[in-house]
Amino acid sequence: MPRYRITIEYDGRHLVGWQRQVNGPSVQQHIEEGILKFCGEDIRIQGAGRTDAGVHALGQVASFDLTRDFEPRTVMNAINQHMKPAPVVILDCERVDEEFNARFSATGRHYLYRMINRPARLTLDKGFAWHVKKDLDHEAMHDAAQVLVGKHDFSSFRAAACQANSPIKTLTRLDVSRYDDEVQIRASAPSFLHNQVRAMVGSLYLVGTGQWTRQDLEQALAARDRQKAGPNAPPYGLYLTDVDYPAYPN
Amino acid sequence: MPRYRITIEYDGRHLVGWQRQVNGPSVQQHIEEGILKFCGEDIRIQGAGRTDAGVHALGQVASFDLTRDFEPRTVMNAINQHMKPAPVVILDCERVDEEFNARFSATGRHYLYRMINRPARLTLDKGFAWHVKKDLDHEAMHDAAQVLVGKHDFSSFRAAACQANSPIKTLTRLDVSRYDDEVQIRASAPSFLHNQVRAMVGSLYLVGTGQWTRQDLEQALAARDRQKAGPNAPPYGLYLTDVDYPAYPN
Repeated sequence: MPRYRITIEYDGRHLVGWQRQVNGPSVQQHIEEGILKFCGEDIRIQGAGRTDAGVHALGQVASFDLTRDFEPRTVMNAINQHMKPAPVVILDCERVDEEFNARFSATGRHYLYRMINRPARLTLDKGFAWHVKKDLDHEAMHDAAQVLVGKHDFSSFRAAACQANSPIKTLTRLDVSRYDDEVQIRASAPSFLHNQVRAMVGSLYLVGTGQWTRQDLEQALAARDRQKAGPNAPPYGLYLTDVDYPAYPN
Repeated sequence: MPRYRITIEYDGRHLVGWQRQVNGPSVQQHIEEGILKFCGEDIRIQGAGRTDAGVHALGQVASFDLTRDFEPRTVMNAINQHMKPAPVVILDCERVDEEFNARFSATGRHYLYRMINRPARLTLDKGFAWHVKKDLDHEAMHDAAQVLVGKHDFSSFRAAACQANSPIKTLTRLDVSRYDDEVQIRASAPSFLHNQVRAMVGSLYLVGTGQWTRQDLEQALAARDRQKAGPNAPPYGLYLTDVDYPAYPN
């Protein structure tokens, strides 16, 4: 059976997240229904990252098999056509070999978190960034963030519902930078725990507003206790930007 | 009477534009109603640029007088509070002298036009950029755009409803650049005719898709006839980014 790899963009504002849920439309459901309408196949697709409700994606990846052998462009255009007007779109589709699995073959995941740091509420960025009114010291945030880079037990930054076998993950990048009023955090790792990025951003917020020092963040990590780290940052500032695969380094 | 200068951001998607209209909420109306609720003064404010329905602003400027002398911060916070949840917010407020007029004192206006150039429809950028499916040659667009820079009769790029005394304007910048799928056009001038930026972008679209050459654009300008230039680009890709004043160069 031919296997396809698709790259997906979505506006998470009105989605319940990647996975199917009873309480509203998910990315997975939109795509699977698009496939059903296109070729009559009722299948389940595999996603690289199970993003939460409200989280956006610029480059989510998924894979699935079809029984018939369609051109990748046909698959992409037909699913996109049938998904209208859902806030989900396939940007790219290609045939991959049968060893490929969007979730298990992924070697790197890249997230962007956007904070708008100003007193005035948001208009254009409402639903697309976290509005932070208190002044953020992005240099202190970047400095502290380096404590988290590397191989650690991230239990302090892990949702209770997380299903990963181990809390030990290797964070390869956690950079904080500022562009005028916007503070951006870029996080990369082979894989993340459930809510890890939002918990790390929520803790860096405490550093940025002067409530925490780099040492406080170090102690939160060492505690291996979700209660010791900061609260989750809101989902709508988070974007899954890219997923790496051995043949497709980014 | 104290005079105030405010800098305004808005999401134009659900606004009828800058000016008051009978068919829906305008930026002017939201701000004037905010002033009325704040201090009971029923006044008219003067805006630097009368943006159309759907057009966004990152840095629109307006001025107005109040009879009472409030701190600028109080004026800003109170109007913002009373405008909730309108997609309009004041980013900055200061006292200016009585010679200042947001419209007539302005020495430069800066616009950004965003095009997303890809086959797949938009999700995150829907309502915030023009979706162009055909490949755009941004270098050809930039090269042709230079024909319009300088002092010209812009009758070919002027709405029938334009109230300017003269069609002669001096365009100081018209740059086209690409960032991945996004083609950005930046236009600057002391002042613009009604719909001038959208008409210029609509004509550059013809160049970018290969339907027009630089010479065609030159002829369209020389014709001084709105029928000879391209159609207006959609409003929702356009952003008023900055307005210059003698004391506040940008």
